[in-house]
Amino acid sequence: MYTFYDKVMPYDTDYQGIAHYSSYYRFVTNALSSFSEKKLSKVMAKYRNLWFVIVESHAAYKRPLYLGDKIKIVIEPEVKEKEIITNFKIFRGKELTTTGYLAQKVIDRNAWHSVEIPEEIKNIIVGR
Amino acid sequence: MYTFYDKVMPYDTDYQGIAHYSSYYRFVTNALSSFSEKKLSKVMAKYRNLWFVIVESHAAYKRPLYLGDKIKIVIEPEVKEKEIITNFKIFRGKELTTTGYLAQKVIDRNAWHSVEIPEEIKNIIVGR
Amino acid sequence: MYTFYDKVMPYDTDYQGIAHYSSYYRFVTNALSSFSEKKLSKVMAKYRNLWFVIVESHAAYKRPLYLGDKIKIVIEPEVKEKEIITNFKIFRGKELTTTGYLAQKVIDRNAWHSVEIPEEIKNIIVGR
Amino acid sequence: MYTFYDKVMPYDTDYQGIAHYSSYYRFVTNALSSFSEKKLSKVMAKYRNLWFVIVESHAAYKRPLYLGDKIKIVIEPEVKEKEIITNFKIFRGKELTTTGYLAQKVIDRNAWHSVEIPEEIKNIIVGR
Repeated sequence: MYTFYDKVMPYDTDYQGIAHYSSYYRFVTNALSSFSEKKLSKVMAKYRNLWFVIVESHAAYKRPLYLGDKIKIVIEPEVKEKEIITNFKIFRGKELTTTGYLAQKVIDRNAWHSVEIPEEIKNIIVGR
Repeated sequence: MYTFYDKVMPYDTDYQGIAHYSSYYRFVTNALSSFSEKKLSKVMAKYRNLWFVIVESHAAYKRPLYLGDKIKIVIEPEVKEKEIITNFKIFRGKELTTTGYLAQKVIDRNAWHSVEIPEEIKNIIVGR
Repeated sequence: MYTFYDKVMPYDTDYQGIAHYSSYYRFVTNALSSFSEKKLSKVMAKYRNLWFVIVESHAAYKRPLYLGDKIKIVIEPEVKEKEIITNFKIFRGKELTTTGYLAQKVIDRNAWHSVEIPEEIKNIIVGR
Repeated sequence: MYTFYDKVMPYDTDYQGIAHYSSYYRFVTNALSSFSEKKLSKVMAKYRNLWFVIVESHAAYKRPLYLGDKIKIVIEPEVKEKEIITNFKIFRGKELTTTGYLAQKVIDRNAWHSVEIPEEIKNIIVGR
């Protein structure tokens, strides 16, 4: 479990006065990117030929988010054979506003095909 | 079933040289917006207090899209009680690259709560 | 002079109910990309090592644009030594809403330094 | 003068492997929004009918920014009669990568026309 704090910016909103549905993926990308930087950047230096590629995205919007809302994104990554599933929840205060997940595969960026996720990367992701 | 043609633009791509996963929702928004303009704009003039709000989004990325790719987005909307589900498929030529759906509710924009979808709107959406 | 037609989409708008100021660069990118595809794609196939890189952007917003507005982007590219200046005007009907320009350099994408713009590219850009 | 720290995210980059030219306006919006929240949110509560609207944007890109770059955005707002000019510089470490400015007017959001900038807002903006 990893927690990231963010804010709804003007460019996240649309004419309905709420965050546009695709902006939520920006919030999740920010959380995932922060997680990767903190936990994975060291080990990934050994695997320069590997890239994480998103193969599935899902979000369920329960409550709208508004300009300036301070939000908390809680991500919980799990490893399933060739996929990393990052479950997420977005809170405004204690209110759960959004749930969803991203699925990623690891690819060899030169051959552009998916590979086994190295054991040490798996271990870091699931927090072992 | 409704078909919309689009193109992968520079701002859709990222450092991996492929379309960023959230850009696909831009393509689907474009298709859905074109559908609404053609089929619904007349009837919606009667319902100025109603807004379609997206309550769920999902995409499965099977093949990457690249800068300049000419794509075909095929949407198939269906009505389920209080939700409109818009299933989509994105093709590059004959190759199916992406599948997914958007779910929308209809809300009263002043009260900001969901309402029954008016029968005549339902009928247009499912093409009756 | 080259003309491109576009539409203000939901994701272009913000909480103020108008197109966000950075969305206008999306419209101009669309126009410039269409121009390049029509006029330059053939000749650029000879120069695979060259990339156009934007080195300056400017926009003056005179009238706001709203969701669904049908707009006309008129671009007028000119060549100045090592830079291509693409002046643009955005119209809604006959109303001039926005003016501005993009400046581009041509770079060798491997060495990542700017190069002379090949004469035949210059000629196409200025419409000779 | 106000300083804000940010990071180049995946969705800021494009197929050229650098930050897309319009992403820089995202960085500047973030800096300006942080400045407004810290310095202006209290006084703006008195002026709920007023909105800042961007009427001009400009950026000169001297050095490219890459995925993960830690950047420092330094903004220097000045007041010119009916306009607020926010000059900005973006640094990566000590390297100046980008310069530019945003111009804003203050409008009555109901009448949607520009108004005199209240004296106390001017004073805060120029740091008096």
